[in-house]
Amino acid sequence: MDFIRRGGTRQAAFDRAVALPYSGSMLTWEDLAKDLSIQTESKIVLLVIDGLGGLPLRGKTELETAETTNLDRLAMRGCCGVTDPVLMGITPGSGPAHLALFGYDPLRYRLGRGILEALGSDVEVRQGDLVARGNFATLRDGLIVDRRAGRIATEECARLCAVLNAALAARKDPEVTLTPGKEHRFVARFRTAGLSDALTDADPQKDHKPLVKAQALDAASAKAAAVVNAFLDDVIKILAAEPVANAALLRGFSAQPSIPLMPDLTKLRPAAIANYPMYKGLAKLIGMTAYKVGQETEDLFTTIEAHYAEHDFFYVHYKKTDAAGEDGNFEAKVRAIEEIDAFLPRLEALKPDVLVVTADHSTPALMAGHSFHPNPFLLVAPTALPDETGVFTERECAGGLLGRFPSLRAMPLMLGHAGKLKKFGA
Amino acid sequence: MDFIRRGGTRQAAFDRAVALPYSGSMLTWEDLAKDLSIQTESKIVLLVIDGLGGLPLRGKTELETAETTNLDRLAMRGCCGVTDPVLMGITPGSGPAHLALFGYDPLRYRLGRGILEALGSDVEVRQGDLVARGNFATLRDGLIVDRRAGRIATEECARLCAVLNAALAARKDPEVTLTPGKEHRFVARFRTAGLSDALTDADPQKDHKPLVKAQALDAASAKAAAVVNAFLDDVIKILAAEPVANAALLRGFSAQPSIPLMPDLTKLRPAAIANYPMYKGLAKLIGMTAYKVGQETEDLFTTIEAHYAEHDFFYVHYKKTDAAGEDGNFEAKVRAIEEIDAFLPRLEALKPDVLVVTADHSTPALMAGHSFHPNPFLLVAPTALPDETGVFTERECAGGLLGRFPSLRAMPLMLGHAGKLKKFGA
Repeated sequence: MDFIRRGGTRQAAFDRAVALPYSGSMLTWEDLAKDLSIQTESKIVLLVIDGLGGLPLRGKTELETAETTNLDRLAMRGCCGVTDPVLMGITPGSGPAHLALFGYDPLRYRLGRGILEALGSDVEVRQGDLVARGNFATLRDGLIVDRRAGRIATEECARLCAVLNAALAARKDPEVTLTPGKEHRFVARFRTAGLSDALTDADPQKDHKPLVKAQALDAASAKAAAVVNAFLDDVIKILAAEPVANAALLRGFSAQPSIPLMPDLTKLRPAAIANYPMYKGLAKLIGMTAYKVGQETEDLFTTIEAHYAEHDFFYVHYKKTDAAGEDGNFEAKVRAIEEIDAFLPRLEALKPDVLVVTADHSTPALMAGHSFHPNPFLLVAPTALPDETGVFTERECAGGLLGRFPSLRAMPLMLGHAGKLKKFGA
Repeated sequence: MDFIRRGGTRQAAFDRAVALPYSGSMLTWEDLAKDLSIQTESKIVLLVIDGLGGLPLRGKTELETAETTNLDRLAMRGCCGVTDPVLMGITPGSGPAHLALFGYDPLRYRLGRGILEALGSDVEVRQGDLVARGNFATLRDGLIVDRRAGRIATEECARLCAVLNAALAARKDPEVTLTPGKEHRFVARFRTAGLSDALTDADPQKDHKPLVKAQALDAASAKAAAVVNAFLDDVIKILAAEPVANAALLRGFSAQPSIPLMPDLTKLRPAAIANYPMYKGLAKLIGMTAYKVGQETEDLFTTIEAHYAEHDFFYVHYKKTDAAGEDGNFEAKVRAIEEIDAFLPRLEALKPDVLVVTADHSTPALMAGHSFHPNPFLLVAPTALPDETGVFTERECAGGLLGRFPSLRAMPLMLGHAGKLKKFGA
């Protein structure tokens, strides 16, 4: 069996001195990771089926309704459980839910959505920069009548960003750069000294409300508020002649956070296989190599296959389940689950030492949004004690051998099963 | 029933004022223990079957394969669960795994192996002493050609320690004392002012490598490194004429740690019934009375029977399961489990108020070493709500009423069931 074959390597690693000094202070998982992790040839694949967990329609959840031959077969081979992303009852955003899965306590590391969008859009962010997510919007008589400016075409968004960048280029301080996204979306980056990110969103959140300015939540952020609001005024002047997209909204202000890198903590050589900017952005932020991935589901699998030799940890992100859940479309979510299930043999064919299938958070179609429900979790490895879970569903997983545990424990669990952690203490 | 009869005593204790002052700081289990624990006549027996948990060979783990009539009967009477010694995925050494079971957070209290060996070998250790585990080794042309000096006889080791102690006695500062162990092993104790234990091992870890000096990991340990390395040089001079054991290696440097005593925290009068030095050492370190126990399994039971009147908490340690697991010997581990199972009626005959059977950590024969898998846990008490677990195995326990919980919660659970903890708050 694989884990016996790897025994030699592990034993050699165990024999090296464990140098945790004695002290009365409490060690965290990060301390353990730094001290106990070792680089080995074993490989871990983590498939995140975004928003997988759901609630029953006609007695069955989306996952219970879907035909999932491959996931059920894997559940039979491995052991199952359910995870809480943050705390029971707490509905997480994608950021905290993913951080937890990657071994970062979401109650300790808080990331603004802006920083994730920026990184995912290949915006270079330096220490001290302030970034935010932007929308082009339609302003009429002092009211935002359409927060998305009629979902202008992506090309139109690129043109408007170029107009603004050109008009603002004369100004050297603050340096403002817009990077276009899809349809009405863009990322704004502000670069000057003394910018802090404790700002409220400059976004009325609903149509037919007046423009809203960013407000500083602490004294240190007063300069940032002034810079951001001056920019919003400039946009209205520069785009005054535009028929539809004549204003901008900004939200999710964030500075470059200070977060330890996954390769430094775990000695992993991690890769992210994701095609949505935010997930790529988060992955890059913590030191993963984020590959360019096409928009089709199959592209996830051709990409991991192409780069399988180069890494020992693969985060594969599948978005359609969450998107269908957010739309409140039960049937579409069932179909999305069945679509990803059909690709599981492609992951199995890679013969990873540890294969985990789980979700970041639940997105029940019946709630049309993220929820606090725990995530089904499935782990297949030669060192996994198989349980009696033979169907991969929320309710079956809850009875699995792994029990109910915080998502934050997923990373040590995967590393342990992969033989990548030395013994703790003597 | 017993717990009703004891109610009166408990109620009197409950009526005493609970004096926990309000503050914003978080209470730990140790704070609760100090404040809530009371001395009563009830007795707790904790049987630790070292390395009990395993992985399946031909579909069944060692514990699933073994015939365990008595453990199964106890599982039927009591309630079951599984415990994580440190964190999911983390493989613990014996020290952290036992500390957790005794109610000490292993992420807070870290013990060097040296201190455990020293205490288990009846070496007196004072605050400020530095101790380490030693090997006699064979040095040829600057290389350690045998890290165990051909596993010299225990008597030979005693002779060499006496030679060195005599030769070094002239030196008053530092005072160095060697205590012989089995075969090539000894414990070294260094006594002088200013010794700190942040040192790397003075051990090449593999044969045919050069001698390695201890290195200080912080400025405070520079003196200790100098003292230790001077001693290693002295050994080579003093033993120059020895044909086989002509050098020493040292590892696991540790100072006397600062750890609260179990009687102070819990008001227990605890006894350790263990015949391996390290487990006796750990028990003594936290204030247990460690009895001299013979090498046969039956000696554990004659010892607890002899001292049953004198204590209210008994830690009974059975080693053979772990030893067989470490050897990768599945069949020997099955036999070791069956051997201890046959003695369970001896514990039941003592009629403890709380009987717990569990493990410190898992040692699957298939991994030939400690592992991170959770431990089966079984509790029998009049206050235990029996579950449907009728077979004492890893997988059955995982479905038990106690669920999956940190080993650190075992001590409050036992004390609670023994009626030894007052109500928390009003």
